[in-house]
Amino acid sequence: MIVAPFGRFTEGRVPDPGIAALFSREHRWQARLDVEAALALAEADAGLVPLESAKAIALTARLEKLDIKRVLAATTEASHPLVPLIEEFARVVGTQHGGWVHWGATTQNVTQTADVLVLREAHTKIKELVGAALRSGAEQARRSAALPLAGRTHSQHAVPITFGFKVAVWIDELVAHADRLERVEERLFCVLMGGAVGTFASFGAAGRAVEAGVARRLGLRPMRVPSRAINDGIVEYVLVLAQIAGTIGKIAKDVYALMQPEFGEAFEPIPPGTVGSSTMPHKRNPQLVLDMLTMSAELRALAAPALESMLHDHEANGAMTALLEDISASATVLAGDMLARLDVVLGGLELDGERMRANLRLSAGMIGSESLMLALGERIGRQRAHEVVYDAAQKAAVTDTPFLDLLAQDSVVMGAFTVEEVRELLDPTGYLGRSVQIAHAMAQVADEVAQRLGPARG
Amino acid sequence: MIVAPFGRFTEGRVPDPGIAALFSREHRWQARLDVEAALALAEADAGLVPLESAKAIALTARLEKLDIKRVLAATTEASHPLVPLIEEFARVVGTQHGGWVHWGATTQNVTQTADVLVLREAHTKIKELVGAALRSGAEQARRSAALPLAGRTHSQHAVPITFGFKVAVWIDELVAHADRLERVEERLFCVLMGGAVGTFASFGAAGRAVEAGVARRLGLRPMRVPSRAINDGIVEYVLVLAQIAGTIGKIAKDVYALMQPEFGEAFEPIPPGTVGSSTMPHKRNPQLVLDMLTMSAELRALAAPALESMLHDHEANGAMTALLEDISASATVLAGDMLARLDVVLGGLELDGERMRANLRLSAGMIGSESLMLALGERIGRQRAHEVVYDAAQKAAVTDTPFLDLLAQDSVVMGAFTVEEVRELLDPTGYLGRSVQIAHAMAQVADEVAQRLGPARG
Amino acid sequence: MIVAPFGRFTEGRVPDPGIAALFSREHRWQARLDVEAALALAEADAGLVPLESAKAIALTARLEKLDIKRVLAATTEASHPLVPLIEEFARVVGTQHGGWVHWGATTQNVTQTADVLVLREAHTKIKELVGAALRSGAEQARRSAALPLAGRTHSQHAVPITFGFKVAVWIDELVAHADRLERVEERLFCVLMGGAVGTFASFGAAGRAVEAGVARRLGLRPMRVPSRAINDGIVEYVLVLAQIAGTIGKIAKDVYALMQPEFGEAFEPIPPGTVGSSTMPHKRNPQLVLDMLTMSAELRALAAPALESMLHDHEANGAMTALLEDISASATVLAGDMLARLDVVLGGLELDGERMRANLRLSAGMIGSESLMLALGERIGRQRAHEVVYDAAQKAAVTDTPFLDLLAQDSVVMGAFTVEEVRELLDPTGYLGRSVQIAHAMAQVADEVAQRLGPARG
Amino acid sequence: MIVAPFGRFTEGRVPDPGIAALFSREHRWQARLDVEAALALAEADAGLVPLESAKAIALTARLEKLDIKRVLAATTEASHPLVPLIEEFARVVGTQHGGWVHWGATTQNVTQTADVLVLREAHTKIKELVGAALRSGAEQARRSAALPLAGRTHSQHAVPITFGFKVAVWIDELVAHADRLERVEERLFCVLMGGAVGTFASFGAAGRAVEAGVARRLGLRPMRVPSRAINDGIVEYVLVLAQIAGTIGKIAKDVYALMQPEFGEAFEPIPPGTVGSSTMPHKRNPQLVLDMLTMSAELRALAAPALESMLHDHEANGAMTALLEDISASATVLAGDMLARLDVVLGGLELDGERMRANLRLSAGMIGSESLMLALGERIGRQRAHEVVYDAAQKAAVTDTPFLDLLAQDSVVMGAFTVEEVRELLDPTGYLGRSVQIAHAMAQVADEVAQRLGPARG
Repeated sequence: MIVAPFGRFTEGRVPDPGIAALFSREHRWQARLDVEAALALAEADAGLVPLESAKAIALTARLEKLDIKRVLAATTEASHPLVPLIEEFARVVGTQHGGWVHWGATTQNVTQTADVLVLREAHTKIKELVGAALRSGAEQARRSAALPLAGRTHSQHAVPITFGFKVAVWIDELVAHADRLERVEERLFCVLMGGAVGTFASFGAAGRAVEAGVARRLGLRPMRVPSRAINDGIVEYVLVLAQIAGTIGKIAKDVYALMQPEFGEAFEPIPPGTVGSSTMPHKRNPQLVLDMLTMSAELRALAAPALESMLHDHEANGAMTALLEDISASATVLAGDMLARLDVVLGGLELDGERMRANLRLSAGMIGSESLMLALGERIGRQRAHEVVYDAAQKAAVTDTPFLDLLAQDSVVMGAFTVEEVRELLDPTGYLGRSVQIAHAMAQVADEVAQRLGPARG
Repeated sequence: MIVAPFGRFTEGRVPDPGIAALFSREHRWQARLDVEAALALAEADAGLVPLESAKAIALTARLEKLDIKRVLAATTEASHPLVPLIEEFARVVGTQHGGWVHWGATTQNVTQTADVLVLREAHTKIKELVGAALRSGAEQARRSAALPLAGRTHSQHAVPITFGFKVAVWIDELVAHADRLERVEERLFCVLMGGAVGTFASFGAAGRAVEAGVARRLGLRPMRVPSRAINDGIVEYVLVLAQIAGTIGKIAKDVYALMQPEFGEAFEPIPPGTVGSSTMPHKRNPQLVLDMLTMSAELRALAAPALESMLHDHEANGAMTALLEDISASATVLAGDMLARLDVVLGGLELDGERMRANLRLSAGMIGSESLMLALGERIGRQRAHEVVYDAAQKAAVTDTPFLDLLAQDSVVMGAFTVEEVRELLDPTGYLGRSVQIAHAMAQVADEVAQRLGPARG
Repeated sequence: MIVAPFGRFTEGRVPDPGIAALFSREHRWQARLDVEAALALAEADAGLVPLESAKAIALTARLEKLDIKRVLAATTEASHPLVPLIEEFARVVGTQHGGWVHWGATTQNVTQTADVLVLREAHTKIKELVGAALRSGAEQARRSAALPLAGRTHSQHAVPITFGFKVAVWIDELVAHADRLERVEERLFCVLMGGAVGTFASFGAAGRAVEAGVARRLGLRPMRVPSRAINDGIVEYVLVLAQIAGTIGKIAKDVYALMQPEFGEAFEPIPPGTVGSSTMPHKRNPQLVLDMLTMSAELRALAAPALESMLHDHEANGAMTALLEDISASATVLAGDMLARLDVVLGGLELDGERMRANLRLSAGMIGSESLMLALGERIGRQRAHEVVYDAAQKAAVTDTPFLDLLAQDSVVMGAFTVEEVRELLDPTGYLGRSVQIAHAMAQVADEVAQRLGPARG
Repeated sequence: MIVAPFGRFTEGRVPDPGIAALFSREHRWQARLDVEAALALAEADAGLVPLESAKAIALTARLEKLDIKRVLAATTEASHPLVPLIEEFARVVGTQHGGWVHWGATTQNVTQTADVLVLREAHTKIKELVGAALRSGAEQARRSAALPLAGRTHSQHAVPITFGFKVAVWIDELVAHADRLERVEERLFCVLMGGAVGTFASFGAAGRAVEAGVARRLGLRPMRVPSRAINDGIVEYVLVLAQIAGTIGKIAKDVYALMQPEFGEAFEPIPPGTVGSSTMPHKRNPQLVLDMLTMSAELRALAAPALESMLHDHEANGAMTALLEDISASATVLAGDMLARLDVVLGGLELDGERMRANLRLSAGMIGSESLMLALGERIGRQRAHEVVYDAAQKAAVTDTPFLDLLAQDSVVMGAFTVEEVRELLDPTGYLGRSVQIAHAMAQVADEVAQRLGPARG
């Protein structure tokens, strides 16, 4: 399986989320046997298959009982994704009962339902990884709730914030994604068990009963219309993962930026021994963050073909089915690898509060221009205050004169405030708004959602 | 972004959904004034702005009172998307109260909240259009619930279905999209009212109260963290519209295929006078369906840049904001135009049941091979039955011999059934499964959801 | 990135183009050693490295001499993609000369140049595969140059063509892609050998000489500016492959369509033993064509992230580098697998000329409406002729009356021609234009280009 | 036309490249009349149309002679993109000759050939804009050829460069794009003049002669196969523009980054009066650069649907045609607007050399680690030198101790050099490599290519 054809050299630094392994041939084939077992038992309940045969089928449905090599050879011969497996399975079940294997089902009923079982395992891990990242985020938000730094829009200083507020923004989107992950389950974790095209013809009158029996046994839901041309639930899942990739890309961009020597405010953890460059010994590269940026692009790129895979024609187009299979597997693996890195980065983030304060002073007070303007505006109107402060600020920028000096020379400003009052109004640490409260509130939300998402890791 | 720079020549055939008009400069600017009015009133409640001033602002907030030309000229001068409008607005409000216009707000608070108001109007229309398409689909599904035709996978005959079952598949995805459209509202229809970067600093302690006041007046919700770097709700909206485009593309492909002379089973309506070709007078082109296919591709293409627009850095990146503005507007316009065509097509679809039956006979009975195999399988096991029927069917295909003749010569088959029994087992109209019931059930679901989505059109 | 995580079950039916194997760790690492060898020798020429050391390095540069396990273990430790390999390499070279390994080079100089070597191998195979497909196409075009069938626009009958003409269209785009594949070589097959950021600082004054020496030894070109932020050549390569995917998608759509029972005009080869369905024994699915459609979507989906990977910042962003590495490897593998299938399909295409003729008759002569209109137009003007023929044709379609009957009742038509003359004018086989000549001409072009592209396979 | 549905508020700051105007209905319709004129004259040469009629048609082919309102009304009625225009045209030509208008042509022959004429006009402007940007880049590269600043990979200091070297990187990709723009012309600027599906049937034996005559008159080329299903030339054009968008995105990212207060090294021009924020008077936003980033994403997003538009079926699919029409028009408009901004930014870029030098000192010498390592490596081997310098550098980073101090305490380093020698080895201005030469060389290349691309603007 080639999600990153060359692997990622940072693998040693991050725990394996174990999602790629779920898509091994063995694991997927076992899932197919599980579906065949559930099908046979459900059909026995419905009187379509002898109970004894169904029991024999269910008992035999373990991959280790099969001769894999026969299956592989027959696959080459038949050029079919499932028939060789069920033929071998039927052979092992034996002549008496083997004829009832796969009764009434079409290939896609089994392969897709089995893949949904695999996706569900991946999904459980993804939710746990989101939960872990939320927990790490919550701790980080609390720890740095009151740590001031420059708020930046379009990478220009805007007004001050705290680092905890920044983390709260990250948390907010992750929490929204947690909701999306839960919401999509209803439409994602369904059996596809309507026969060749979804009319249940091969199950006679027992179609819905068989579907319900399989669904119950596998812990899945039935579909309103069990057509294999309907795949919007899986597509939506890829889109949710792609949105997660968007958020992780944003977080990665932030850490990448803050880690620059010119900022020096926050750093992903760099264990001793990590080499940044073969030729520049001093290099401390944002390796995990780079991985996250790469994978963010790779996962976002899956949205377009996922949407294209909705373009089935008639009752199904196998090219669209295969396309979505490839995409959904790739997307979950990428999501897992990305989230694992996010957790390490959030958990190990090193902050430099001193540098943050130094950077806040970079604009020589101009980061407080709004604060001053509003105070001045209460006296002379917002518009005029904007003009006065605008003139001083732009002049400061163009002439490289200290902002405060220019304000101190301005008769309108000095008509309203003393120099000391202006200095106070420009003090960034006095203009943090609700940053601290928002940081704590979102830490709380993060913990609650993480709790809901599943067991803490480790 | 790519909204038919040349227009669509089919415009005369389809009612205008009226969404493009919502994004006119006038309509968007009025929405901004509405936000400024709500803001002033909410700030008055919070004691930040004199009540009298807020009332004056709210009373003046009508675009027709402003001198648009002044705003346009100043926009060129200032190169700013909002300041010229609020300066002109403040001028008209007058010297006494005008200074309180836009108090404490940053540009994005007003432009984004106003755009959300516009999106909400577009959304209402989109939901109604989905509802209309569902109603048309429901009628169609009922009308053709029992009309048999070939079910096709990979464009090869599979087993028979009814046309109503096919429509039920279309309905199912549209219903799922209706759910998505409703679900995204919570995260989409929010005020962004946290000041410059979302800390509420400019509103002092009254931040959350101002936000709540504005939200209440505009019928919107507050955000957990009012940061303009958070845009996943709008992105999700684009993704839902892109999924609708996926489904409409699928439906369009179906109609396009069935309308071919080689199929001749279903046709989009072609009013008299419609010209298909300048040189081939006989041409009856699937014009609306072609439009739907074009727009499906255009709208799906917006998913990738929508996801890219999540990559804000720090507290916002204006390039990402502008990107998502362009995309979300384009996406709603495309969705409207596409849904309007879908409704016309679904409502006017002409079916040719005779041709459907003729096509069912194309495979000379082979479309009933599953039916025969299962009946035979009950006697000799599924596996062996598959082999027997496979051999006959492949031989029929390769040698161009009638399937039934070959079966009649097969000792295994003839050991189990008479020729007449085989003929009956191969009869497609006897193997429709639950097609009819599913068609009716989904028609019912479609009507219920349409009811929920809003007033019938016309 | 999305290269069939589950494999393709049709693999047994198609020769392996051998591209995936080129991207194995072993093959890529050997290429890196090749680059290190060339570098050392070039530096010896330039006097930067002792000649004896360079020779020792070049002699040792075989992966089988290294202890791979040490490299892998050290990679985990150092979290670096190359340093562990060159440390082990230097160790094996020995203490006397090992210190000169990788002298003055940065990691990317070696990894990217080595990957370019691998891409060149893949490129050779891809060109040969395009050549093979062109040869198969040429044969097909000649064989069916005069075989008439319906030309279809928007899947409605337009005017007649021959099958060879259809193949000529396929060939035309493939020929254009062959040109593109050759053109991109100049910008693609370059050494990146300018040191850490492309200024040659680490090579002193000998930078350009070292670069030239490495380039000459590896058969590559130097870069105008050897910056690793410049990757447009590789991106263009992915885009060319994506365009090939577009063309193959188009061809696949054609074969998929023509293979439908309702058309029955052309078929991909289906070897005996191929199973189409586990439940419908008669199914003969267009398996290779489906693969081509899936891979077309997967490869086209790589264009967007390839373009995104151009967004380096400053002198390089490793996330963009890694992204393009993953994409370019995946793209070449997909291109190879897709082209291999194209060749099998083109070479084995089975045509049914009788069915083509039957389908030509489907419109009961209307496919000749242009021919009739032009003949009539010479007498009464194009416009009026269009009106007359339009009226008859639309009436034929709506009332299901034979076209010729309506024409025979039309006084304008009958004023110009006898019924027999009309019948002749409507005869599709008399209205093939230059189809035959174009088919032969393009077969000729295809053979010439194939000749240029490299050795025939097999 | 909605490329940016809301316009761009920076429009007043940038000269209008005039491309959007080319896609007005009037301009496109006139181009269609031009094609009809050329067609009539070419057909007269070939004896298909009376010479007198062709002359009358050519003389009348001016949009101002037609009644546009009639055309618009008829378009609504006929739902056809061209027939109403040629009917009105024929009416004005008069009864005697009007019947020969559009003789033998299909709609797409005229609309696509006309659109190609429009694209050619856009293309001329785009090439001139690239030329202008190259000229501005050349000046900038020369001016700052020797201005040192930190080279950065992964946004970490790597080795020093000069600003002119950075500009040389930008120039290099633009030069490659200029080549691509020229190369694509051959396949892009073609007449499509093969009749309904490209077989020339409607022109009798004169097909290639008519095609040649039209091509000669319009200054276009014929196609190898004049099929409307072939559109790879236009798609390639969109892909070239998308690659330009990639490069401009990269340049924009650079300027955006350097303009941050934490860098303060380079700035896009900000004319007096420009307002950055409605609430933060000090804000000086990178407005043009933000536009470039937005448009880069929008234009790159067109690559995917452009590639999808290759998926014609049979002899054409109008949905694909319309898709590519929309995309190619949007792409040229975006390219023009983006390039116009690039030129303004490159031409007006303000550099702060002092700040660059200050930032070079940020790592307290570590940016010279490669220089030191190589010098040391000549004495003790590269590997060991890397280890020694690595240890000092990592310790410096972790313990916040000056790098030089640690080196001065290192016995290995001090065994090889004096402290003063180490200080010199670490001096960034002594380690610029070939930066200066590359800057000048690329300025020269840029000027030459700009010369080739067309007249200087203004």
